[in-house]
Amino acid sequence: MAKRQKQKFLKALCWKEDHIEFINQVKLPEKVEIVEARDLETVIEAIKSLKIRGAPLIGVAAGYALALYARNLEKRGLQVERIKEKLKGASDLLFKTRPTAVNIRNVLSRMKKVIELHKDDLSQELLKEAKKIERGEEERSGLIAEFGLKVVPENAKILTICNTGTFAAPGFGTAFAVIRRAYLEGILKEVYVLETRPLLQGARLTMWEMKNYDIPAVLVTDNMSAPLIKQGKVNFVISGADRIVRNGDTANKIGTLTLAVVSNYYKIPFFVAAPLSTFDLRGSSGNDIPIEERDPEEVISCGGIRIAPGDIKALNYAFDITPASLISGIITEAGVLYPPYEDSINRVLSERV
Amino acid sequence: MAKRQKQKFLKALCWKEDHIEFINQVKLPEKVEIVEARDLETVIEAIKSLKIRGAPLIGVAAGYALALYARNLEKRGLQVERIKEKLKGASDLLFKTRPTAVNIRNVLSRMKKVIELHKDDLSQELLKEAKKIERGEEERSGLIAEFGLKVVPENAKILTICNTGTFAAPGFGTAFAVIRRAYLEGILKEVYVLETRPLLQGARLTMWEMKNYDIPAVLVTDNMSAPLIKQGKVNFVISGADRIVRNGDTANKIGTLTLAVVSNYYKIPFFVAAPLSTFDLRGSSGNDIPIEERDPEEVISCGGIRIAPGDIKALNYAFDITPASLISGIITEAGVLYPPYEDSINRVLSERV
Repeated sequence: MAKRQKQKFLKALCWKEDHIEFINQVKLPEKVEIVEARDLETVIEAIKSLKIRGAPLIGVAAGYALALYARNLEKRGLQVERIKEKLKGASDLLFKTRPTAVNIRNVLSRMKKVIELHKDDLSQELLKEAKKIERGEEERSGLIAEFGLKVVPENAKILTICNTGTFAAPGFGTAFAVIRRAYLEGILKEVYVLETRPLLQGARLTMWEMKNYDIPAVLVTDNMSAPLIKQGKVNFVISGADRIVRNGDTANKIGTLTLAVVSNYYKIPFFVAAPLSTFDLRGSSGNDIPIEERDPEEVISCGGIRIAPGDIKALNYAFDITPASLISGIITEAGVLYPPYEDSINRVLSERV
Repeated sequence: MAKRQKQKFLKALCWKEDHIEFINQVKLPEKVEIVEARDLETVIEAIKSLKIRGAPLIGVAAGYALALYARNLEKRGLQVERIKEKLKGASDLLFKTRPTAVNIRNVLSRMKKVIELHKDDLSQELLKEAKKIERGEEERSGLIAEFGLKVVPENAKILTICNTGTFAAPGFGTAFAVIRRAYLEGILKEVYVLETRPLLQGARLTMWEMKNYDIPAVLVTDNMSAPLIKQGKVNFVISGADRIVRNGDTANKIGTLTLAVVSNYYKIPFFVAAPLSTFDLRGSSGNDIPIEERDPEEVISCGGIRIAPGDIKALNYAFDITPASLISGIITEAGVLYPPYEDSINRVLSERV
C-alpha cells in the first residue's frame, strides 16, 4: 500500500483571544456546533454533559477554564489574593466534574503551581501554561503515533472502541493517532469501530473522524467483537485510556474490558495508547480508580429516543477497568511500555520528574 | 425467598377461527399492535421484517401460514393437486425468509408429511398439525423451565441476551422460561438483560416481559457483560439458540459469542436453552450454519434514528456461532445435555425418532 498525504486536523477546543471555543460533541455528527465559552460555568457544564470529553481534552479544557476565570476576575478588579482563593474553588469544581479520567488532576496541579508562583499578570501566566499543556498534548499525540507504528502489524486490521481522536485529545488523539499514522504509512487495511453504547462515541465521533481523513472504516455494534476476531477480520486491537495506575490496570470507556477479554481469548494483541498525563501513580491497582456511574436514562435511550418500556431499572457504568494482565503494551509519548508494568511505568515516570 | 404466584402468559401469535393474529414485535414497547394476517404474504413479510421473530415462534408461524394458504386456495376452488403444488412453492418461500434459525425447516418438513398423506380437508389437517406444533412448543417451554431449574444456582444472579420469552417461543419461551421459573420458585435474586443491539430485542421485548411478570430486571448495554461478571453481580448466564448442530456449536443472536467468551474467562456457567426443534443433525459443526447478514442501516440507526455520519460502511451479522467448548450445558425438553455433545445430542435425538 502506498503512503498517503497528511491531512490537517480539526480543533475540538481552542483559545480564541479572550475566550474558549469548542465543538459541541453531543451534536455530532448531525452538525458541527461551535460554542463560545466566556465563563467558567459554561466549561464545567460542557464537561459534565460530554460536550467536551476525552481524558486529555478535558484536562486541556480545565487549564483554559482557569485562565479564563482568572481573566474575568481581573477584569472585575478583584485583588490577587481574592482571585487566588476563587481559583482554588474553581479548581475544585473542575476536579469534580468527572471522577474517572485523571488527566484533569494532573493539569490542575500544574496550574496550581503557576497560581502559587505568580502575582502579576496571573491570568496571562495561566493562559501561557494552558497553551503549553495543549501544545504538549499535541506533541505527545505525534509521538504516540510514532511509537505506535512500531507495534501495528503490516496489513493491519484494527478494532477500536469509543473516540480517541481529535475530539478526545489535542492533535490527532491517542489510539486514533496510531490508526491514522498506520493509514498514512500504507500499512492499514481496515478499521472496525465499535459504536460504543450508551453514548455512541464510536458511531458518532470516530466514524466522523475516519470519514474526515478517508480512513477505510466499518461501523459495528459492540457485541460484534468476538465474531469479527474469530473470523480473522482483526489482527490488532487498540483503545485509549482514562486512567492508568501503577500496576498497569487501566480505566477506559465501558466495553474496553469485554474487548480485552475477547482479544485475550483469541490471542490478538490488545494495546492501550495514552499520554503520560493519563498515569496515576497514587493508585496501586484498578481498585483505586473511582468509576463514574451516569444517569440510567442514557442506557434506556439511544440516540435520544427511548428504547425500553417505562419504569424499568438500568445500570450505567461509564467506564470499566481492564487488568494489566490483558494488556499487551501501553503506547506513550516516551515509548511503548511492556509488562511488568510496575517496573516499566515507574521507570518512565521517574525519568520525567 | 418465597415462592410466587404464576401469571398467565400472553400469546405472541395464535390462530383465530380463519386467520392468524400476531403482535407486531417491531412496535413494542411503544404499543401492542395486533395484526390480523389473512394471507401468506403478510406472514412472510412479518418474518422478514422481524414483526414475528424467535426461532421457535417463526416455526409455529410457518405452520399456520401453510394452513392459512391452503384454506384460501380451497376457498378459491383449486383442485387438490394444484393446491399441493402451490403449497410446495409457499413452503420454499417460508424456508427462505431467514436462513439461520432451523426450527422452520423442521416444521416445514412435518407439514410436508401432512400434505403428502392427505387429500380431503387438507387445510383442516394442516391446521391440526400446526396447532399440534404450537401446543408441543408450549409443553416444551414448560419442560425446559423444569429442567433448567435444576442448573440455576440458589440466589441466582442471571445475565441474559436478546429475547427468549413469549415473543420468541410459545409458552414462556426458552431461556426466559427458565428465568421466570427460577423467579417463581424464589431462587432468583436479579436478572441483567443485555439490550442486544442492533434491534434491541433485550431492551424492547425482554424488559417488557420482565416487567409484565414483575421479575426484578436491570437493563444494561451489551458491552457491560465483563464488568458485571467481574464484580460478582452475575453467577449464571443463559441464552436461547437459533440452531444447534451435531457437535453442540450453537448459532444465536449476535453478541452471544462475546458473552460466552467472557463467561468462560470468568468461569461463570454459560447455558443454552432450546427445544429439540432447534437441533440440526445435518450440520456437523458451526461452519455448516449459514449466518444471516442484514441491512447495515440497522447498525447505522438505533431505535429508528440515525446515529452515525452519512455515507459510511457498517457490518450487520444477525447471528454468531458459539463453539460447544464454551457451553456448560444445553437445556432441552428432554433434559440437560452435557459435553461431549456429539454423544448427548445424538442420544437424545435418536430416542425421539
